[in-house]
Amino acid sequence: MEKISAEDALSLVLDKVRPKEASQNITINEALGRVCACTVYAPIDNPPFDRSPFDGYALRSTDSAGASPEKPVRLRVAGTIYAGDACTKRPEAGTAFRIMTGAMFPAECDCMVMQENVRLENGGAEILISGPVGAYENYVRAGEDIRKGQLLMEAGERLSFAHLAILSAMGFEDVSVKSLPVHGLLCTGDELASAGAPLPAGKIYNSNETLIGLRLRELGFVPRILPVSGDDAGMVASKIDAVIEELDTLITTGAVSVGEKDIFHDVFKILGVEKLFWRLNSKPGGAILCGIYRGRPLLCLSGNPFAALTGFELIVRPVIGKIASRSDLAIRKQRVKLDGDLAAKPIRRFIRACIENGTAKFPAEHMSGQIFSIIGCNCLLDIPAGAALDAGSEAEALLF
Amino acid sequence: MEKISAEDALSLVLDKVRPKEASQNITINEALGRVCACTVYAPIDNPPFDRSPFDGYALRSTDSAGASPEKPVRLRVAGTIYAGDACTKRPEAGTAFRIMTGAMFPAECDCMVMQENVRLENGGAEILISGPVGAYENYVRAGEDIRKGQLLMEAGERLSFAHLAILSAMGFEDVSVKSLPVHGLLCTGDELASAGAPLPAGKIYNSNETLIGLRLRELGFVPRILPVSGDDAGMVASKIDAVIEELDTLITTGAVSVGEKDIFHDVFKILGVEKLFWRLNSKPGGAILCGIYRGRPLLCLSGNPFAALTGFELIVRPVIGKIASRSDLAIRKQRVKLDGDLAAKPIRRFIRACIENGTAKFPAEHMSGQIFSIIGCNCLLDIPAGAALDAGSEAEALLF
Repeated sequence: MEKISAEDALSLVLDKVRPKEASQNITINEALGRVCACTVYAPIDNPPFDRSPFDGYALRSTDSAGASPEKPVRLRVAGTIYAGDACTKRPEAGTAFRIMTGAMFPAECDCMVMQENVRLENGGAEILISGPVGAYENYVRAGEDIRKGQLLMEAGERLSFAHLAILSAMGFEDVSVKSLPVHGLLCTGDELASAGAPLPAGKIYNSNETLIGLRLRELGFVPRILPVSGDDAGMVASKIDAVIEELDTLITTGAVSVGEKDIFHDVFKILGVEKLFWRLNSKPGGAILCGIYRGRPLLCLSGNPFAALTGFELIVRPVIGKIASRSDLAIRKQRVKLDGDLAAKPIRRFIRACIENGTAKFPAEHMSGQIFSIIGCNCLLDIPAGAALDAGSEAEALLF
Repeated sequence: MEKISAEDALSLVLDKVRPKEASQNITINEALGRVCACTVYAPIDNPPFDRSPFDGYALRSTDSAGASPEKPVRLRVAGTIYAGDACTKRPEAGTAFRIMTGAMFPAECDCMVMQENVRLENGGAEILISGPVGAYENYVRAGEDIRKGQLLMEAGERLSFAHLAILSAMGFEDVSVKSLPVHGLLCTGDELASAGAPLPAGKIYNSNETLIGLRLRELGFVPRILPVSGDDAGMVASKIDAVIEELDTLITTGAVSVGEKDIFHDVFKILGVEKLFWRLNSKPGGAILCGIYRGRPLLCLSGNPFAALTGFELIVRPVIGKIASRSDLAIRKQRVKLDGDLAAKPIRRFIRACIENGTAKFPAEHMSGQIFSIIGCNCLLDIPAGAALDAGSEAEALLF
């Protein structure tokens, strides 16, 4: 099978997957970061009633006509309306109501005057107003923020604290969200040892499960971690067969290169996986094998940690983004200035880097097995085959 | 008490709080986004042994001396070393080992040649090498990525998937992290109704609990939500008194302005809270009252949702950032271009906006009670008192 570009490879997989349609009702409190599954219209106005924006006195604007510092208008205070009060009172001519911030306006009152701007008389039983107050001055109308029936949010929007606060203000207790896709993660390799015990000679601790598993969590998913497998194609195949129906995708690491124990070629044959591509024409992460098995993508990444991460960002992230209806997980590019020189290489490379104020810094050491320099990186520089780039020149970065 | 600037107010609180010192051991898998509590040095090399970066043949470089396409060197294949094998073999002169990617180099072999670059003879029992292979060519040395004893991470670093993958590669099962501060959230107001039932006249649904509670969750905290309280200072005071020792801070909403039911002034008196400030010389969110009670900050925000959010971003976020040793929660500023005009007002304002490519778009409507336009906002524009700004002019933005 020909090596292909990351873009062509991604298209092949994207063409085969569809957004997950299942949805579920969950409480507002659980819904942070989830994807809205339906169109939501406002069931009520916000504010729900005409209300006062300040502490002061509600009145009919007509009652303040002609008021001046020299000839203030005197109004009798007929009662107090607190926030939360169901206000059924109507003011008689020449009266005002003490009204608190957020309280409902009495019928016929069409304005209020802030308490700093009135003079109290007779122990607060009366007030003096020293200027006319306009109709609807200091007056917040029902629906000024949100009008009943208005479109609030649409299917596909990712719910932030702001979306969810609005749903709360509308009285919703729960919200319909897209069901979270379940991504299986299977790390393979006879060389993988378990943490917490001394390392046998020739073995390495499994860091891919953490790298890919926690990257998935960072993106809002809860991966289904499968027990680590040795390099036995038959066993791996039956493991996949047993679990695939419970998953939306299966992501694996290891055993996808050209060695004798690169068992995923056999696994694909055993299961009859529809192979989409094997190997990208770029490094690292070029060793990636993808296929469709029983409708689910099998996304088989390199066992080299940084190669696995590169394959994850180039292929897996956009694929699981489409399945989850998460446009924020699609490939995002930015032109950046390079902070150092890059010698030409015969193959397209993706180099870990950190963008700060438009300039990309990258570590001197960036071999695919090296993981220490992943800390702090926020992008992959996309360096074309044959390009020799000097510090200060521009390159395209794929943002994490 | 004088109104003060947001900066002075923040300093007053920051001076009174200290980073939480408690730490706990948790598994690597639980530690995403948590703050490292100790200095971590590498207990082993990474890679842990000299290993092969490709599939091919390991040999002594001296055995390949003089090889050429015309006069290739013939080596006998003495065995195969797979990734994970404990390699104790030594090659006799004139022999090579088949070696897989990630496998341990045999003693005395100091290079390898990729399988694409050899010719197999006698069914793979021998190989022909058509050029000399240099010492340490295609040779990954132990510790090339991480050297045993090297500083890996320091107390205070926020743990990303990359940090945690490195800890996994080092064989750690768990990590010491700062204990997560617990922030209480108490929404007050007789006007607050519960979601899920019809709205009584004059009442509003409580959106502040969602707004501030989920903003806290977005920032990595798990708030302790206290039941909503009515406007009774004595009851609120005893509620706070009963729970304060279990909290690192208490955040409240509502009842901090100048109205009769703005009970927090009384709550502070009843409890004997050390008052730090009341009211900022800016809008919205100016109505904010802060004090220290039994060593904990009481951070009392406005009941108006956007005013509450503004007070949260200006004061609460940096304060809880200091307590949590999270420098990413400090105030972060950026100069931006304005997308529209802003008329001069006599008071400093913070206006919700969305920065895209250095330009800030802001909604026409941005009163403090309006919440719909919070969706999509990622900053507060800091507009000085008296400043009239035209589209295209610059302003400072405080990033969410």
